[in-house]
Amino acid sequence: MGEFELLARVRERLPSPPPHVVLGSGDDAAVVVPGGATATSVDALVDGVHFRRETAALEQIGAKALAVALSDLAAMGADPGEAYVVLGVPEDLDEDGCLELLDGIARVAEQTGTTLAGGDVTRAPALTLAVTVVGHAPTPGDLVTRAGARPGDLLAVTGELGGAAAGLLLLEARSSFEPHGDANLDRASLLARQLEPRPRLDAGRALAAAGAGATIDLSDGLGSDARHLATASGVGLEMDAGSLPLAPGLAEVAASAGQDPLRLAVSGGEDYELLVALPAERLEGAKAALGPPGGPGLTRIGAVVAGEGVEIRLPDGGTLEAGGFDQLRPASERR
Amino acid sequence: MGEFELLARVRERLPSPPPHVVLGSGDDAAVVVPGGATATSVDALVDGVHFRRETAALEQIGAKALAVALSDLAAMGADPGEAYVVLGVPEDLDEDGCLELLDGIARVAEQTGTTLAGGDVTRAPALTLAVTVVGHAPTPGDLVTRAGARPGDLLAVTGELGGAAAGLLLLEARSSFEPHGDANLDRASLLARQLEPRPRLDAGRALAAAGAGATIDLSDGLGSDARHLATASGVGLEMDAGSLPLAPGLAEVAASAGQDPLRLAVSGGEDYELLVALPAERLEGAKAALGPPGGPGLTRIGAVVAGEGVEIRLPDGGTLEAGGFDQLRPASERR
Repeated sequence: MGEFELLARVRERLPSPPPHVVLGSGDDAAVVVPGGATATSVDALVDGVHFRRETAALEQIGAKALAVALSDLAAMGADPGEAYVVLGVPEDLDEDGCLELLDGIARVAEQTGTTLAGGDVTRAPALTLAVTVVGHAPTPGDLVTRAGARPGDLLAVTGELGGAAAGLLLLEARSSFEPHGDANLDRASLLARQLEPRPRLDAGRALAAAGAGATIDLSDGLGSDARHLATASGVGLEMDAGSLPLAPGLAEVAASAGQDPLRLAVSGGEDYELLVALPAERLEGAKAALGPPGGPGLTRIGAVVAGEGVEIRLPDGGTLEAGGFDQLRPASERR
Repeated sequence: MGEFELLARVRERLPSPPPHVVLGSGDDAAVVVPGGATATSVDALVDGVHFRRETAALEQIGAKALAVALSDLAAMGADPGEAYVVLGVPEDLDEDGCLELLDGIARVAEQTGTTLAGGDVTRAPALTLAVTVVGHAPTPGDLVTRAGARPGDLLAVTGELGGAAAGLLLLEARSSFEPHGDANLDRASLLARQLEPRPRLDAGRALAAAGAGATIDLSDGLGSDARHLATASGVGLEMDAGSLPLAPGLAEVAASAGQDPLRLAVSGGEDYELLVALPAERLEGAKAALGPPGGPGLTRIGAVVAGEGVEIRLPDGGTLEAGGFDQLRPASERR
């Protein structure tokens, strides 16, 4: 397989770019005419760190790489625009395998209205995907950062937590959970949370429109990402562990693996839900925007306070120490 | 070393972003207000494929990663804007090593007016750098693609060829070249061509302003990149090997390594000069723009013809078969 043959086959599969992408993949650079402000983020996934080829299909790995990159645009409330993909290909991955990866990327691109506008492919010792995504908004003021949380704001989260961590336990066969009946659905749903995360793009735009003060996507874990938001905003955050929306099936999977479901929900990471701080009077509007059938819903889980740090209160009066996903630390050091 | 500690130390070192970068590194995404059109490109360098840590300083590796990404913007005639860097860090590279890499990236960013606006860092089995660069231009029409060469145009190249390939021979001690006197300067210059390539940003903008029809940067090698330009433009290219501007010292290094200097100049790659097709009446204007002291100069090397393919004619009447740098093929298969 050669670089240029592969790139040619990839380009054959790409749909025509939309009008604002004046020149798509294949030249020295893609040419785009942005409407107003751009939001740009980059995310990398490496075999053995973020996924394992033994437990995920190549199509899923590709899809996840773009989805988690887009999750950062969701947190900004941006419209997804273009994606640029670096593929690091190990010796044992052939051209068809690369195209399977690209099929997954293309699927998420189509689902989200993202244009694959460029990329690079190179030999690498382990399968590596680095995805740059560019989102758009009319003005910078239409985008929501991590820095706008104010004491007195409410804290809320979209969807459900802990599902991706429970899915990982199932995937790695570290849970002896034996589902039957409805639990079969839960099992499939938990695996999908781990293998095929969906960026909350609609929710992010709805939260921005509803007047969210600050938003962050939960990639590292609620505890860790909440600290990022608190630091950026110069505030403290208080959450009630009992109010966290746990993914259906999480309790059973955690129990069978001898793990605490709350800890998985707070430190497991990879749920790619949105944590949002917003003035109390805007909560109902935001809930209405996210609540309709098919929407992820929005759950109030705490409050923004003066000070610093993150406190997650347990029902017994104690607090939960939250770790998270650190891409440079081995999994064994995470908690 | 943790991911977040490292990112914090990186951000401490970054200068304040310019006004059009509304939000730099540290949030979910960088927020930029582009002026008109953007040109976006991504390039990855992997240890063992594009460089070897044994023969290049970390600072040089970082500098090269950004420089080669910016070279694509040079080929478009774009103003460099923002860069986003993914760092894949192997176990044996510590935090200080990562900061050395970043120092090299920051040096080239400062030299070229590029803002480091975001990135990601992750564990990886081999040192990996993936750099996305965004350039700017008032309108898409101000940018030069590979596709605008027309039969009758002249073909020219900036600077000198073969220097990076000769530098690689010296670096890998595959040449027994023993310089003295002026040849010492040549040796240093050839090594710099390999280790510290300079993107031809000023030349690219000058060529765009002078009315270049098509431009490509020479990353894979003149022969290979000329084919890309010919295919994109739907034309043929004819070059005269005798007119190629060879890097000083190339002949001596090639001879001592038992290699053909012309082949190194045509197939060696990594010179990051610009190949340009332009109407004959614009050549003198372009030469004047690139020729002043300190400029790379511009050498006429051939012509654009109807048809397809690339022919490099040798002085003896034969033609040179040109290979190039294929990022998925082992070095031994390249020629």
